[in-house]
Amino acid sequence: MATDEYQIEGRNAVMEALKAGKIIDRLYVLDGCQDGPVLSIKREAAKHDVVIRYVDRTRLDQMSETGHHQGVIACAAAFAYTDLDEIMQKAADAGEDPFLILLDHVEDPHNLGAIIRTANLAGAHGVVIVKDRAVGLTATVMRASAGALNYTPVAKVGNLSRTMEDLKQRGMWFVCADMDGERMYDLNLTGPIGLVIGNEGSGVSRLVREKCDFNAAIPMFGDINSLNASVAAGVLSYEIVRQRLIKAGK
Amino acid sequence: MATDEYQIEGRNAVMEALKAGKIIDRLYVLDGCQDGPVLSIKREAAKHDVVIRYVDRTRLDQMSETGHHQGVIACAAAFAYTDLDEIMQKAADAGEDPFLILLDHVEDPHNLGAIIRTANLAGAHGVVIVKDRAVGLTATVMRASAGALNYTPVAKVGNLSRTMEDLKQRGMWFVCADMDGERMYDLNLTGPIGLVIGNEGSGVSRLVREKCDFNAAIPMFGDINSLNASVAAGVLSYEIVRQRLIKAGK
Repeated sequence: MATDEYQIEGRNAVMEALKAGKIIDRLYVLDGCQDGPVLSIKREAAKHDVVIRYVDRTRLDQMSETGHHQGVIACAAAFAYTDLDEIMQKAADAGEDPFLILLDHVEDPHNLGAIIRTANLAGAHGVVIVKDRAVGLTATVMRASAGALNYTPVAKVGNLSRTMEDLKQRGMWFVCADMDGERMYDLNLTGPIGLVIGNEGSGVSRLVREKCDFNAAIPMFGDINSLNASVAAGVLSYEIVRQRLIKAGK
Repeated sequence: MATDEYQIEGRNAVMEALKAGKIIDRLYVLDGCQDGPVLSIKREAAKHDVVIRYVDRTRLDQMSETGHHQGVIACAAAFAYTDLDEIMQKAADAGEDPFLILLDHVEDPHNLGAIIRTANLAGAHGVVIVKDRAVGLTATVMRASAGALNYTPVAKVGNLSRTMEDLKQRGMWFVCADMDGERMYDLNLTGPIGLVIGNEGSGVSRLVREKCDFNAAIPMFGDINSLNASVAAGVLSYEIVRQRLIKAGK
């Protein structure tokens, strides 16, 4: 990521960052705030010797990038993107088939954050995003990830279809959502897999789609034609989880 | 739902409608107009993701119903909340077991919109929200719902646990997400069901949780402790869909 520091805003995000041992340079707390969650944050901050500064609401509102600071803003050391090899190594170290989520130009920071959050909980080993046009790891993404960004590695690549080509050489299979595809329940998604999520407006691009081994249809009974990108990522991730649990006899 | 459209004309009226979070489908602005108040309206419109169309004076004069458009005309949706009985009737008419999504004070308009979108595609018959504190049907919700708000009825109730009590009398069962609950795959979610989604920060409230027949655990393998509310709603909705498809032999 950038070389300078970035802000983490909101109670969940700040608490998770502290617990994950992220390096917090300064913690700004709303002066006089005695809420339970804020007191917990202060205790956790004290454990990590984080410098706390008490400021008034006007100051916090001015500092806030997301507009949702909830009385706490932490200044953290900048993020480093992970290398793709590191993500693959993480899977190997765990003795698990790799499970990646690849974002083909997801633009909404709320979606990116929610997807990283889902990746963390669904047991994915990492998230891959594309360099140009797409959203980067901003304070809004951090907050929307509810701290998952501290645990789940994110790699940034120049060309997604080339990255997929490379990963296929290493045994990975790829699946993307496709209304006209096969029903997700009828596909075998238990192997080393990359789940591709497309742009909010235009979906998965043609080149990337052509590299996908499976086109998975989420059953749809409604009047509109697509789920929110982070919801689709959640539904497909959990279909992968379900199939893997069955395969493992759990 | 959206009964019809109506026009709001004039700078003050349009500004007030935007600030009140009314759902503006389109905003017509006099092309080339750089007046301060009009620029303020454009800024406010951008905040609410309102589509702006630039037209000439002749066109505005033709459109105007009041003759006093002052360079701005907004087309607003006249939304009406649905009655709970109407939602139940919708299920009965379809010959399906009712499937409702009930929101226990979901606050983020992006989440509310995404959940209505999911409800539509997963074949839920309606969404129930609570009157106080929670977010209403604003333009941001409309946009996040990707149009689903035009199809999926939303009912607003005063007291969620009382509504659940009433619906239980009519044969409904209720499920909410709970980390410590039974794994969702092991529950029987095929009957007349209400899926309860809690507040982003504090989850499902105690009174509402006590009314739930099932506590469903979404399997989690990560470091943080909850999915985004709209993602959790998506994952649980699609577990209901999967079980219903199997039961129907599809």
